[in-house]
Amino acid sequence: MTYEFLKGHGTENDFVLLPDHDGTVHGDLSAERVRALCDRRAGIGGDGVLRVIRTAAYAPQWVDQAEWFMDYRNADGSVSEMCGNGVRVFVRHLVDAGLATSPVPVATRAGIKVVTVEGDQITADMGPPRLLGSSEVSVGDRTWSARHVDMGNPHAVVFLAPGETLDPHGPVGPLLDPPVHDTAEYPHGVNVEFVVREGEHHVALRVHERGSGETRSCGTGACAVMVATAEADGAARDTPYAVDVPGGRLTVTWTSADRVLLAGPAVIVARGTASL
Amino acid sequence: MTYEFLKGHGTENDFVLLPDHDGTVHGDLSAERVRALCDRRAGIGGDGVLRVIRTAAYAPQWVDQAEWFMDYRNADGSVSEMCGNGVRVFVRHLVDAGLATSPVPVATRAGIKVVTVEGDQITADMGPPRLLGSSEVSVGDRTWSARHVDMGNPHAVVFLAPGETLDPHGPVGPLLDPPVHDTAEYPHGVNVEFVVREGEHHVALRVHERGSGETRSCGTGACAVMVATAEADGAARDTPYAVDVPGGRLTVTWTSADRVLLAGPAVIVARGTASL
Repeated sequence: MTYEFLKGHGTENDFVLLPDHDGTVHGDLSAERVRALCDRRAGIGGDGVLRVIRTAAYAPQWVDQAEWFMDYRNADGSVSEMCGNGVRVFVRHLVDAGLATSPVPVATRAGIKVVTVEGDQITADMGPPRLLGSSEVSVGDRTWSARHVDMGNPHAVVFLAPGETLDPHGPVGPLLDPPVHDTAEYPHGVNVEFVVREGEHHVALRVHERGSGETRSCGTGACAVMVATAEADGAARDTPYAVDVPGGRLTVTWTSADRVLLAGPAVIVARGTASL
Repeated sequence: MTYEFLKGHGTENDFVLLPDHDGTVHGDLSAERVRALCDRRAGIGGDGVLRVIRTAAYAPQWVDQAEWFMDYRNADGSVSEMCGNGVRVFVRHLVDAGLATSPVPVATRAGIKVVTVEGDQITADMGPPRLLGSSEVSVGDRTWSARHVDMGNPHAVVFLAPGETLDPHGPVGPLLDPPVHDTAEYPHGVNVEFVVREGEHHVALRVHERGSGETRSCGTGACAVMVATAEADGAARDTPYAVDVPGGRLTVTWTSADRVLLAGPAVIVARGTASL
């Protein structure tokens, strides 16, 4: 069986897109095929698969609010709710292919997400943040305070001390193992971001994602970091922050309507047919 | 600029193929494009690029002996002579696309290589081996004797002791660093293979490639291991050995004509257009 695919990424969070507008190409889309596609050696390679399918064919309850459903799967084949960089790549494709015009409402397992395209910047409305408690995170013999921000998934945001850097030879280390965290605060695990200040309204981070290890980018992680930083700064709402991730630059804005907007590049780099 | 590509692999040694039959698509093929294509997040991903170009357009001195030249580049953009799994994937494509019929002579920077296709097995004649000296290889506080086999590139073949396994928690470890070797024996570095016996004429290996780290497969490494094993066994020439690599199974035969034949699967999994 041969079928169409595209490959794209947002700040190096990369995806295989599977156009399946009426659900007739992939049917239930097996976990086995998702794993084969995401395999970086034997397949095409990606952090996940984004099936492009009409709500009419997959989630008729959304038909009145969105034409397209983002059927997101993790690289291990499991179903997932949402992905901030994923939905930006998804809309890059829809708009490039003439399948939608900005702003684009996208149905996901976490509800409707509205995505706008302006030149090379694609912005996803990630909804309201929740600022929760504080706890501690440790790497090796170094322990920091960490702010708990929930973006639909849990984050522990660590601000490094002045003079500390994100260098893998520094106190954060190579992040081969999950940082030690408070399991009472985070009973379902946590994504941990380590943050340094780069300038006014400008930070840089490294992120360890639960289940994935260190990654080149994490959309909700960038949002959580911006919210914790804006809180620490006492910044006015609607102030954009530059958030540098290892795979590029994201711009995050916490609006006066209490929404977090995640903006950045998203590109399609290849398209063709696969037989995996 | 948009151009054609294919993605394929041989025992999970993976490549981006660039059809450029007359050399008019990619010209000199920049190192920058090779790196962009091989980037596993921002590009398509691969251990290297195989440009498919006619000898008439690239290496006219070979025109009488081979129609096609394999212009192989490493993932870092550098030029390379040959790749045993690469030339098998290259010929899989030529035969599938109707551009050649088996046996196929392929011009490479290491001379003409003859490749045959029989069903799903693609066999490359890797030429004669050279059995050289012995030295020692160490990982952590464990030291083994290592056989020096040259397949055009240098190999140190280590047979683990009875009871020792290839498990990353065992004496070979996770192979994050190059094994310690004799720099007088190997002045230009070395590829190190760790070998266990699986049965009669059947071994399994892990390999650390100089400059690449541990990989899923190494064609010349499988050949070197077979030659060292056949020597230790006193095996008759023309006896096929099964050589299991992390990415699959290769079959290696040292012939009575003193050639090493590397056989195994090679598949094309995707094709399309890229804009990298």
